[in-house]
Amino acid sequence: MSTQTVKKDTHPFERAQLEALMTKRFFYTQAFEIYGGVAGFYDYGPSGAALQANILSHWRNHFIVEEDMLEVDTTVLTLADVLKTSGHVDKFADWMVKDTKSGEIYRADHMVENVIEARLKGDQEARAAAEGRAVDGPAPAPKTEEKKTKKKAKAAAVKLDDALVEEYKQTLARLDDFNGEQLGELIKKYDIRAPATDNEVTPPVEFNLMFESNIGPTGQVKGYLRPETAQGHFVNFERLLEFNNGRVPFASAQIGKSFRNEISPRAGLLRVREFVMAEIEHFVDPQNKSHPRFKEVAHVVVPLLPRETQESGSTEVVTKSLGDAVSTGMIDNETLGYFIGRIYLFLESIGINTQRLRFRQHMSNEMAHYASDCWDAEIHTSYGWVECVGCADRSAYDLTVHAKKTKRDMTVQEALKEPKVYEKYVPTINKKVLGPQFKKDARVVEEAILACDQERLRAMQGELEAGRTTVSAGGNEFEILPEHCTIELKTIKESIRSYVPNVIEPSFGIGRIFYALLEHSYWAREEDKDRGVLSLPPLVAPFKVLIVPISSNEKLSPIAREVSRRLRSAGITARIDDSSATIGRRYARNDELGTPFACTIDFASVSKGTMTLRERDTTAQRIGSIDEVIDVLKELCAGRLDWAGACERLGEYNGTQDVDQ
Amino acid sequence: MSTQTVKKDTHPFERAQLEALMTKRFFYTQAFEIYGGVAGFYDYGPSGAALQANILSHWRNHFIVEEDMLEVDTTVLTLADVLKTSGHVDKFADWMVKDTKSGEIYRADHMVENVIEARLKGDQEARAAAEGRAVDGPAPAPKTEEKKTKKKAKAAAVKLDDALVEEYKQTLARLDDFNGEQLGELIKKYDIRAPATDNEVTPPVEFNLMFESNIGPTGQVKGYLRPETAQGHFVNFERLLEFNNGRVPFASAQIGKSFRNEISPRAGLLRVREFVMAEIEHFVDPQNKSHPRFKEVAHVVVPLLPRETQESGSTEVVTKSLGDAVSTGMIDNETLGYFIGRIYLFLESIGINTQRLRFRQHMSNEMAHYASDCWDAEIHTSYGWVECVGCADRSAYDLTVHAKKTKRDMTVQEALKEPKVYEKYVPTINKKVLGPQFKKDARVVEEAILACDQERLRAMQGELEAGRTTVSAGGNEFEILPEHCTIELKTIKESIRSYVPNVIEPSFGIGRIFYALLEHSYWAREEDKDRGVLSLPPLVAPFKVLIVPISSNEKLSPIAREVSRRLRSAGITARIDDSSATIGRRYARNDELGTPFACTIDFASVSKGTMTLRERDTTAQRIGSIDEVIDVLKELCAGRLDWAGACERLGEYNGTQDVDQ
Repeated sequence: MSTQTVKKDTHPFERAQLEALMTKRFFYTQAFEIYGGVAGFYDYGPSGAALQANILSHWRNHFIVEEDMLEVDTTVLTLADVLKTSGHVDKFADWMVKDTKSGEIYRADHMVENVIEARLKGDQEARAAAEGRAVDGPAPAPKTEEKKTKKKAKAAAVKLDDALVEEYKQTLARLDDFNGEQLGELIKKYDIRAPATDNEVTPPVEFNLMFESNIGPTGQVKGYLRPETAQGHFVNFERLLEFNNGRVPFASAQIGKSFRNEISPRAGLLRVREFVMAEIEHFVDPQNKSHPRFKEVAHVVVPLLPRETQESGSTEVVTKSLGDAVSTGMIDNETLGYFIGRIYLFLESIGINTQRLRFRQHMSNEMAHYASDCWDAEIHTSYGWVECVGCADRSAYDLTVHAKKTKRDMTVQEALKEPKVYEKYVPTINKKVLGPQFKKDARVVEEAILACDQERLRAMQGELEAGRTTVSAGGNEFEILPEHCTIELKTIKESIRSYVPNVIEPSFGIGRIFYALLEHSYWAREEDKDRGVLSLPPLVAPFKVLIVPISSNEKLSPIAREVSRRLRSAGITARIDDSSATIGRRYARNDELGTPFACTIDFASVSKGTMTLRERDTTAQRIGSIDEVIDVLKELCAGRLDWAGACERLGEYNGTQDVDQ
Repeated sequence: MSTQTVKKDTHPFERAQLEALMTKRFFYTQAFEIYGGVAGFYDYGPSGAALQANILSHWRNHFIVEEDMLEVDTTVLTLADVLKTSGHVDKFADWMVKDTKSGEIYRADHMVENVIEARLKGDQEARAAAEGRAVDGPAPAPKTEEKKTKKKAKAAAVKLDDALVEEYKQTLARLDDFNGEQLGELIKKYDIRAPATDNEVTPPVEFNLMFESNIGPTGQVKGYLRPETAQGHFVNFERLLEFNNGRVPFASAQIGKSFRNEISPRAGLLRVREFVMAEIEHFVDPQNKSHPRFKEVAHVVVPLLPRETQESGSTEVVTKSLGDAVSTGMIDNETLGYFIGRIYLFLESIGINTQRLRFRQHMSNEMAHYASDCWDAEIHTSYGWVECVGCADRSAYDLTVHAKKTKRDMTVQEALKEPKVYEKYVPTINKKVLGPQFKKDARVVEEAILACDQERLRAMQGELEAGRTTVSAGGNEFEILPEHCTIELKTIKESIRSYVPNVIEPSFGIGRIFYALLEHSYWAREEDKDRGVLSLPPLVAPFKVLIVPISSNEKLSPIAREVSRRLRSAGITARIDDSSATIGRRYARNDELGTPFACTIDFASVSKGTMTLRERDTTAQRIGSIDEVIDVLKELCAGRLDWAGACERLGEYNGTQDVDQ
């Protein structure tokens, strides 16, 4: 029952219509709306909360249950020390500028980008006007979702020098490279002003994106609301490893809220200050990133946008199987490839249109401070391509810094099947002689000898056999005699290998996926662009079945309640709509809620025990006994049957009651 | 398969043993432990997170799905204005005192209580010693979980005057009544000192329990981490009402984290700074608090501790059916009674021992500032009786204050079946005459006339007929003539009734329930007090089935994986333990995890396709074909079969492999 095949959407997508539906059917709304609201905070109503809960429930099954991941639930409020070590206190910041007169604040890179793009657009218009044609080509494709905002800069249609156009384009491409000082220089050089007022702006100032708070009554313990759930996994790594019997690989997973104090959040649910994340930290041997289940996804064909393509200036995706992508080295290893495949299958199963999905590899200049490689699942929306899932190789960064700071052992001890046997030059210091002779220098001399590499030790052995050698320590050279030190070639047998695991992190922004899914699911009936439909799959639809008594006759209501009870006991959320609205209005309301099926209780339900079943996307109806229809619904909602299959099991319905057609 | 019937726990409960198990099997641990930790913050590991997720999943089914509640998910970070209106900014505070020398901070009421209780205990010991007997009676029963803390005050065995003992007891009983000044007087009067150092303490200072933060880059928008989820429901009330087609009663529900900056949190999971709540706000007609489904719980017998009993100084519960409790007025109305019943059934179903559960009505002096009545579900633990679910009637408090502050209409419009018809005196002002004659006083005169009550208007009508009347406004008396105003007796017909609904709020502290459940589930095998068992019901057990290959033989592993796959696809979480530990060790480990069932894969699985099934509490084993055992497991985990039933369907097992017995 693909949404693509049945819908007859002849209306171009209008975001305002979707947003109106979201409010009307209470999917979400601005938080504290009655108090005027605050940018970047949203509340989810019954439809939105149910949709989100269903997405998360499927996420839990698809990832945690299916792969035996270790779920954790760690605190939101995080001790400052933890985030100092992870680098967030120092580096998790954006640059902001202030309008020198109005005081309005902008994120510096967004403002520069915004203004330059507007000027380039003005240039295009001016050139087109000179040639007597309209600008029909698109403006440079927005790279992130931030571009089309309410505060979009405008520029007059002024033709620019060809050289300046080229400079502007190069600046845009390199924008992620610039630090605050460099952004300040750009602002001066190009006379970039506040878009809203055309006033000058202050030089960029760093602004940390974490919300800060004090813990306890003394105010001396500082904490931050976590900007990601990941650190909660890392600080518990030793216990998790122990829980997994000391073995790697394993993954921990966490679903929870994170917080980022965005400078100037716009773009609806796509850039918010409080959001739900679902994060997996897959701990893996750095020398062996193969994955035992990779073969299960090797055949999956995904659209990839590797680094090289982007460097060549193209955004054309390469569509290939994950097996090929890994074997050709486009994707570094099986574990990364495996998760890309699992992410793809997850997004497809909840209803994301895979024609509007791509995996884009990060350029080296845009990766987070901890990442060594990263592929983003980007979903196309009316805001452009939006990063919805990051799949990063964080290497051993986090465990290493926490281990160093806390002096904890975060290594994995692997018993080697075959002990590693090798020969090694080993120096033995004779402290009883060395100490008295070298006195205060004894320690540095000893350290210098122990620090020598194998090649130097081999040479020193030969020299000692010949009578003497030398070692440099603390800027001086010391003469070493055989009585001070002996060097032997020993056979070493290692049966334990010790290493800090690497981390592959698939990190899901649930709110962004939620919003993209709504855009992909939304369309309007051919006959009326105000009759919106959300073609959400039964798996995630907020409510699975609408039960409609055809009238307020008292004989119908007990049947409706009984059908509702039976569906509920089968785990299917059903809602009775016994309002006085017409059947057509009630169907339309539930099309807007994305409810895939509707059961209509009419007088034949009383006399013959039948019930009709309506499918949302086609509006087609079938009929059967109440038992049959409930059985079919169980199969449909479990995804074991599609609508075509349901039509084979239920009879045609040509009732006169159908006011929906 | 009641836990009470099978366990042979002859060891007294030791909290330290349970806590050691919690850490060893990673149910939970102190957050940021490797950074030294911070009091009141806990991280949940895989076993704890799974147990919590299962409790919440069942909560969602038992309440939200079963009762068609409207789930919401509102922000944690809350605009200060919202919490100012709700009263939390001004009133959500405790009193704290500081040790004048060490600077250590105490919650004032807890310190007073703590020290007085210690002195009373010392008195008892002294009296006992004088009489030559040990103190065998218990100390005054702790009312809250705070009493037995690490920093428990100690007092020498000193006999006190009888009068002082009486004064102390009365003080303890009234402790919730005292404000900061009064607590300060108590501290002076009784020379109460810091328990840890015996130093003097400062006078009590108010400390607001909300974590504060700033939103946005200007620092001018203040927010708090919500101390409860409830306000998120209330500020969205209008949309929720609209979603429910304007009808009342309906309930909204929310599961999410809340935060309270406790002054000095101890007592493990029972008093924490970050915690998961599950809250229901049931909106109801204040004139009709009947509940359509009350009859479904009327027969449920619950242990009640009403206000009157407590006022008489007793803590003996009254055990009666909810039907009786409501009809006799002990519980105020059906809706409160219904939720008390549903809460009881919920707690029972997840494994709380109902012999250690009671519903205690709040005394009038201990209710929150918004509540008009409240019954707490209290669960008995080693810390004493612990409030785990509050079931409060918040009346119309919240909606009223938010409506007033934001000037929104939060009333329900009810179409009356029978229009209400009555007569009413209605004044009509003749502004054209009144205005020019009264000039600047015209407005206050008009307002004064319109503000008159019916009795006054009736009198005025008579006076006007007689020629003149008077009205007081702004401290002056004005003469009103028939040309200024006419008063008529009109027949009024009202077809709409408008009211602000009342709110019944069942509010669940999930962490407290979680901890109480662990205490109730924990016991140790008769033969060894170190062999702990958690008798968690399959419904909530973190993992349902352990799969144990009897050896590392390569023929067993594929069978184990296949059984795991089949169970998983039936929605049953199974974990394979193929570690090298003995079977007995592996069983014992999973007894500690609360895993109710274990399947053992042995060589008969290879040759005959059989598998044994072990039950955790009895350690009994049965045998059947792999298919049979999986079918039985499905029924067991769904709660459709108990162990006795399973034993009828599977054969006896007398295998020599059973090293567990």
